Amino acid sequence: MASMKIDLERVHAFLTEFQTTDCSIVLVTSGGTTVPLEKNTVRFIDNFSTGQRGAASVEYFLERNYIVLFFYRLSSTLPYQRHIKNIFEESSQSNQDVYLDQYHKHQKSLLLIPFQTVADYLTGLQQLCCLLKPFGRSALIYACAAVSDYYIPDDELTEHKIPSGQNELIIRLKSVPKLLGAIKGEYAPNAFVISFKLETDEKILEEKCLQSADKYNQDIIIGNMLKTRTHQVRIFERMEKQWTIINRLQSNSEEKEIEYHIIEFLCNKHRIYQNSNQ
Amino acid sequence: MASMKIDLERVHAFLTEFQTTDCSIVLVTSGGTTVPLEKNTVRFIDNFSTGQRGAASVEYFLERNYIVLFFYRLSSTLPYQRHIKNIFEESSQSNQDVYLDQYHKHQKSLLLIPFQTVADYLTGLQQLCCLLKPFGRSALIYACAAVSDYYIPDDELTEHKIPSGQNELIIRLKSVPKLLGAIKGEYAPNAFVISFKLETDEKILEEKCLQSADKYNQDIIIGNMLKTRTHQVRIFERMEKQWTIINRLQSNSEEKEIEYHIIEFLCNKHRIYQNSNQ
Repeated sequence: MASMKIDLERVHAFLTEFQTTDCSIVLVTSGGTTVPLEKNTVRFIDNFSTGQRGAASVEYFLERNYIVLFFYRLSSTLPYQRHIKNIFEESSQSNQDVYLDQYHKHQKSLLLIPFQTVADYLTGLQQLCCLLKPFGRSALIYACAAVSDYYIPDDELTEHKIPSGQNELIIRLKSVPKLLGAIKGEYAPNAFVISFKLETDEKILEEKCLQSADKYNQDIIIGNMLKTRTHQVRIFERMEKQWTIINRLQSNSEEKEIEYHIIEFLCNKHRIYQNSNQ
Repeated sequence: MASMKIDLERVHAFLTEFQTTDCSIVLVTSGGTTVPLEKNTVRFIDNFSTGQRGAASVEYFLERNYIVLFFYRLSSTLPYQRHIKNIFEESSQSNQDVYLDQYHKHQKSLLLIPFQTVADYLTGLQQLCCLLKPFGRSALIYACAAVSDYYIPDDELTEHKIPSGQNELIIRLKSVPKLLGAIKGEYAPNAFVISFKLETDEKILEEKCLQSADKYNQDIIIGNMLKTRTHQVRIFERMEKQWTIINRLQSNSEEKEIEYHIIEFLCNKHRIYQNSNQ
């Protein structure tokens, strides 16, 4: 599990094409981050995240003509690819061409940028936000990766695999530096910033969202519960101090995914944001 | 990340078909195991394992007419599927049909059984080995999953997501009960048992293999280094006290995967084992 550096020249070249247009552009972060427990990493701490939400959101942003930087955990869910079943599932081939066509239609507006560890993520987030600064209010940061809260700093990591013969193992982790506040504070001050808060205890969800908004100044924070995240989210707009709840009927498989509704909501809010104060 | 119980009736029905034949049968365990840090699991400890070795080995066992139970970590690499590129890679479609054909050819001899947590794995390994007991010396157990050495017992797990606001987090883990010794000792006494030992420090690899063989009575133990595992393994036969080193030239991409050579070696040894003492 080696560290993955971003090829910044590649990102810069991609962005340059769109600099003079009036495109909206979004950075979608997706998937969990890993926390290595050894330098030669055999063991690591991970966050639950399939990357499904990020991958689905990318498709809906592309449909709304956004340019997308997809900053995703390696081997997490990919847009379009997520619909294609593996060879062990039945009707394997049936819909592959539909999604391949959709991908080809939007291919030029999408850049894939993988990461692996929480350190990769933190460095990459800062670099990518700084590259989006010139886009001002046209840039949207959609931070939906599940970022580890604790890690072992590099200089405290043991070199080799932790031996297996002990009765007990004690792991001491430090809190991960929070960069979320620095996005609007420093890296891309005019970007429209959205982040997610996942909880398992419903009683504390709204309070945690409010605390986060207070601390990091996101424009919008989206609260969701681990168990109900695919059919309910609670969206808080910081400036308006306003909650919106989006529900998706579980019973109706014909209904669009919840990410469709989330992105529709956000794109409307982003349009208002772009038109204000210009 | 819910617990995954094995559908034992399904496995039993699959095995029944082969009980009266003189087939050889192999249980391949594959991928890492997760260690939840919370009951409502957001965070977990993982072991590095793509499941590549297990998935490749399955294909070579099937080519040698083994019946295969593939006990694999959910979302780790799948046999045949592993060759099929995703839609973002070029030449996406080119070889899909070849591997689909190979899969269809061997489909009836292969049963996929997924797991997720280390607790799932331990329960499942015992159950599956017990189901293989009637196959006597025709059964081969190929334990190549990367099993966690430490975990938090269920009754010590916190219910909800660990809060993120603390400066430090201390995790206390207990050692995982070792079942490897019980395979030959109890579950499937006549099976031919192979396990793997992965290390990052070359100096201790052989010693660790010998210690493991001493403790758990596997017939064969295969040592490999994290960095060189795709082109070198050291195989130790416990009874013969004999080392065999298999090297694969890295430079020659035409050469067969190392798993081809490992399985060839093991099948020969298994044949000798089956013919002795009968």
